[in-house]
Amino acid sequence: MSAFYKTIIISAQGGIARVTIDNDPVNVLSLQMMAELTSFLENVKDDETIKVVIFDSANPDFFIAHVDMTIAEDPKAFETLAAFALPGLNPFQTLSERVRRLPQVTIVQLEGVARGGGAEFVAAADMSFAAIGRGALGQPEALMGIVPGGAGTQYLRHRVGRNKALEILLGADLFDAQTAERYGWINRAIPADTIGAFVDNLAQNIAALPDGVIAAAKRVVPADDYGAGLESENTAWASLFTQPPAGQLLLGGLKRGAQTPEVERKIEVMLRELATELQ
Amino acid sequence: MSAFYKTIIISAQGGIARVTIDNDPVNVLSLQMMAELTSFLENVKDDETIKVVIFDSANPDFFIAHVDMTIAEDPKAFETLAAFALPGLNPFQTLSERVRRLPQVTIVQLEGVARGGGAEFVAAADMSFAAIGRGALGQPEALMGIVPGGAGTQYLRHRVGRNKALEILLGADLFDAQTAERYGWINRAIPADTIGAFVDNLAQNIAALPDGVIAAAKRVVPADDYGAGLESENTAWASLFTQPPAGQLLLGGLKRGAQTPEVERKIEVMLRELATELQ
Amino acid sequence: MSAFYKTIIISAQGGIARVTIDNDPVNVLSLQMMAELTSFLENVKDDETIKVVIFDSANPDFFIAHVDMTIAEDPKAFETLAAFALPGLNPFQTLSERVRRLPQVTIVQLEGVARGGGAEFVAAADMSFAAIGRGALGQPEALMGIVPGGAGTQYLRHRVGRNKALEILLGADLFDAQTAERYGWINRAIPADTIGAFVDNLAQNIAALPDGVIAAAKRVVPADDYGAGLESENTAWASLFTQPPAGQLLLGGLKRGAQTPEVERKIEVMLRELATELQ
Repeated sequence: MSAFYKTIIISAQGGIARVTIDNDPVNVLSLQMMAELTSFLENVKDDETIKVVIFDSANPDFFIAHVDMTIAEDPKAFETLAAFALPGLNPFQTLSERVRRLPQVTIVQLEGVARGGGAEFVAAADMSFAAIGRGALGQPEALMGIVPGGAGTQYLRHRVGRNKALEILLGADLFDAQTAERYGWINRAIPADTIGAFVDNLAQNIAALPDGVIAAAKRVVPADDYGAGLESENTAWASLFTQPPAGQLLLGGLKRGAQTPEVERKIEVMLRELATELQ
Repeated sequence: MSAFYKTIIISAQGGIARVTIDNDPVNVLSLQMMAELTSFLENVKDDETIKVVIFDSANPDFFIAHVDMTIAEDPKAFETLAAFALPGLNPFQTLSERVRRLPQVTIVQLEGVARGGGAEFVAAADMSFAAIGRGALGQPEALMGIVPGGAGTQYLRHRVGRNKALEILLGADLFDAQTAERYGWINRAIPADTIGAFVDNLAQNIAALPDGVIAAAKRVVPADDYGAGLESENTAWASLFTQPPAGQLLLGGLKRGAQTPEVERKIEVMLRELATELQ
Repeated sequence: MSAFYKTIIISAQGGIARVTIDNDPVNVLSLQMMAELTSFLENVKDDETIKVVIFDSANPDFFIAHVDMTIAEDPKAFETLAAFALPGLNPFQTLSERVRRLPQVTIVQLEGVARGGGAEFVAAADMSFAAIGRGALGQPEALMGIVPGGAGTQYLRHRVGRNKALEILLGADLFDAQTAERYGWINRAIPADTIGAFVDNLAQNIAALPDGVIAAAKRVVPADDYGAGLESENTAWASLFTQPPAGQLLLGGLKRGAQTPEVERKIEVMLRELATELQ
């Protein structure tokens, strides 16, 4: 399982696999990371020795910044991406749904920022815990002229309800750990100095459960089929992605320092300034 | 758009319309206000220059007190009301659904009390923010011998779940901003001294989004069809409204000062005393 | 109505029935208590003088510990239980669904611990309030090698959502009153010194409502049919209950002091130690 991955580090012990996102400088969800996560997920799903998968980050500031914006200027990217897609899903939705449908219990330990595709990844996991003062979630896609395209709109819709989902999607601001908990976006906000022990303890307790219990719980609380919603999301996403504003904002954003730590910390500010200038 | 309205004040700037409820002394939702809100909603829905609609109140204590109780003693009221109704909806549900189905983003800035039809109006909006210490919500219809009849039962059912909805409907008490947030009735409780800036900022950010993003977000997080639930609500409401207790409580309540600021502040107390005496 | 019950105490006044669980030493949900609760529920549902039913406990530490674990060693227990079952439901689901479908308003005043079948009973009620510092909820079934089998998985799934439900079911830890509120598992956490007055006031207000209002509210906010989910739950529960780990954990747990106050306080710790030794 510890394959030659370059953007994720895998370790496993006592029935628990840990996937540590490690793609400097800000953990963008690049084509390579998508391929490596897909490879890991495809392998682990049939590995009966693994009961729980924890996702965390090697970068103290970023969990997953967002999907790599350079995909917008890479003419071959979508061909490469298409290879990942399961029937009826786009490549980004496929990654999210692979996580959501994993037979193992998936836990996100969120100690940095997760935006866009990163926030969708968090929502795809069975459980998510965010460090108070450090973990944060955002769906800034609206500021790039699009809507989330990796299942996030449907996860939010069913998880936090329409009213909060519209605020998250259209307000497009970053939500700190405690507000994300109040909104029901994550399971719980946890003090930063204890989140590691909390998640370890939870994972160990689950990994130690008698045979059959995890599968039974996942069967009686199933991952509902969001088929029509995902189709609607993909249609909306694709129709906006091919319009001029999206391209201008994505490429303009890169020129202004997107995907560097400095600008990523407040990427919403940069994108709003850019949109104003483009008008 | 700034028509000759008497119960609402309309202003618009930078893609944002502001509807300020202004119907002294307590902002009852009168036939006139229903007509004026309907006129505004019908006009604005086709106005592509308006992206966001904010609803607030000119009265620091009341957002919308509730539907005008004098309707119960006005023999022509229901004939007038019937003219507002869309197919399959009663007139009150029609107003709520017109708000919920508006293509623009609707935001309630709740700085006073919203009860009954006022609370339903708040729930119909896409997003709602209440000022801590000032904003409050209640569905006191049970104390008038009825259930909410303007879609509120279905909004609550789907938004806060059955258990909290039954408490809100049958406990019939006023919920302060923070409890309303904890129950998921509103998006968020905001400090009273910053709610104005918070809502302005959110509205400006949304109004500045690239073309097509608002429509796409509303399409992927749609206003679900509550058809059967609304029909059930109307049947329950209408069957109770025509029974003696409802008439006695509505007309008796008016005699005891309902719709005056003094009594409206604690209308639940007055209605409970009245019910005890009527027994 | 005040029948010769041995495990519950019934009192009634002013349209409000109070059911006080009283089955020393820890209020296990025994066959007798199931029979007595069923008898009470069957009688009260047709009693039009009763508008509200409050459930509380005579034991300050325990509301309902969980289903009596000695059922696992009683060869006749399931025959006895089968007599309680309504079509399409197992006996434990039947008890929960009888509570959830009662025409009266049901309120749980939770001042001690409710685990397993006790937590399912709490979730079956229309409303639930837990005393801060004293009330707590847990579904430790996973630690016994099973999943909840009394409708709890479906109540949690629809009430707190899949992500929190999986944490509750698989983490299997006890949730204090305030965390249970944050998760949406109960209506509200209430200070321990005021919960009695809060529930009394709420019950009296509801019992005093005009005729027809309670029935109308329950009709417009109905108890949704969880039929397929309940069938899935029963299949999962039954298939695990008959496997060796469940028997070993239930009988081994009894030998180590389950159902005594001392061990019940931290039954999760004992069950985890037992599971480790059995491996």
